[in-house]
Amino acid sequence: MSQNEVKALVFDVFGTVVDWRTSIINECEILGQQKHIDIDWSKFVDDWRAGYRPAMDKIRNDGEKWRVLDDLHMDILLELLKSHSISLNSDEINHLNKCWHRLHPWKDSVNGITRLNSKFITATLSNGNVGLLTNMAKFAKLPWTCILSAEIFKHYKPDDEVYKGAANILDLEPKEVMMVAAHKSDLLAAKSNGLVTAYINRPNEFGKYSVEVEDVEKDIDIWASDIESLADQLECS
Amino acid sequence: MSQNEVKALVFDVFGTVVDWRTSIINECEILGQQKHIDIDWSKFVDDWRAGYRPAMDKIRNDGEKWRVLDDLHMDILLELLKSHSISLNSDEINHLNKCWHRLHPWKDSVNGITRLNSKFITATLSNGNVGLLTNMAKFAKLPWTCILSAEIFKHYKPDDEVYKGAANILDLEPKEVMMVAAHKSDLLAAKSNGLVTAYINRPNEFGKYSVEVEDVEKDIDIWASDIESLADQLECS
Repeated sequence: MSQNEVKALVFDVFGTVVDWRTSIINECEILGQQKHIDIDWSKFVDDWRAGYRPAMDKIRNDGEKWRVLDDLHMDILLELLKSHSISLNSDEINHLNKCWHRLHPWKDSVNGITRLNSKFITATLSNGNVGLLTNMAKFAKLPWTCILSAEIFKHYKPDDEVYKGAANILDLEPKEVMMVAAHKSDLLAAKSNGLVTAYINRPNEFGKYSVEVEDVEKDIDIWASDIESLADQLECS
Repeated sequence: MSQNEVKALVFDVFGTVVDWRTSIINECEILGQQKHIDIDWSKFVDDWRAGYRPAMDKIRNDGEKWRVLDDLHMDILLELLKSHSISLNSDEINHLNKCWHRLHPWKDSVNGITRLNSKFITATLSNGNVGLLTNMAKFAKLPWTCILSAEIFKHYKPDDEVYKGAANILDLEPKEVMMVAAHKSDLLAAKSNGLVTAYINRPNEFGKYSVEVEDVEKDIDIWASDIESLADQLECS
């Protein structure tokens, strides 16, 4: 492990720093009560999230023109509203689509990042667009030094361009940058681009549909139960 | 003045937020003492800064390939060292060039931006590259919500692409973004792209070579003696 050279920590955000699922289910359930729409909102939200990877992979692999995550979320949302015969006006739809800007942090996130800021540059490195991540930083009081996004590199993770691009735009060597994520695939891609890796365990990201606990210990540099624990391991006061 | 719609404030940085001239003269004078180099460092620093606009304009107007400000600073520095017959090794030169990452804020900047953060998104919108601005945010404890840079848009101010790009990447209309700068040319370019404008008066930016006070009041939306005064005028507690 070469963590002594690390100068910047770049974070996956959805799932790693914020609890997207609980946040969005709560917003949708309130909307449902207001509009008298009685559906399984947990499933609605899981379906919304499930549409994200294929939409992104079309851009990653099929040469589709770059589009930001807000637009991909909107496409999936419009399909879901249609399939559930839910009728909303355009302001309501725009507001609902932007619930991804209003996600609540896991309880350790703000304090953990604040502690990490005492020694390191901290930045997002998310597939969320800059506007989304900036609004979220303000909403959730996440004290990032800098917002980095797939949007800046016009490539979605796990494309190499995002990891290499993050080190380059921060004026650092890849080995001086630590990728922090709750997903093994993100960390393996970062590692293959020379970044140091820290896994954050978020067993409740997908709620009761929890995926099997990932076996990552042999593949990553640091395993942490949460961001406060990462700050402990990096000796941040 | 349509400042009631403003959601984000984007800042010019060199001169507006940080006192580049005093900061760099101090670093150079210390270097001079260590290396027994006795020259007029104020003039050296003013010449360094004077080289920036023509280097940038080559990229803006002559179709030269995009290069970040750190690289432009390095070109000018190497010429200056040569013309003064100053011999430094490559580590010393790299460290000196990065003095632009270690600029001290004006005394009102950190508190002013902290207060503005209570109501607005605050971001840099500088010709400095992302790495430079991120290191400076950490060094000078500038609590930006987000770092925006000419580098992201591959255009230098005052090109339209930077101002339009900032509003677009923040997912805002131009009229929802206020450009904050100590330089009339920057504000006029922002205004012509639909942004709201705030002038910060920095009469000491260029030290004793102070330029004539700019007559801006008829051209801008807010005139402020410093960033704390801007926070007062925008009713930030």
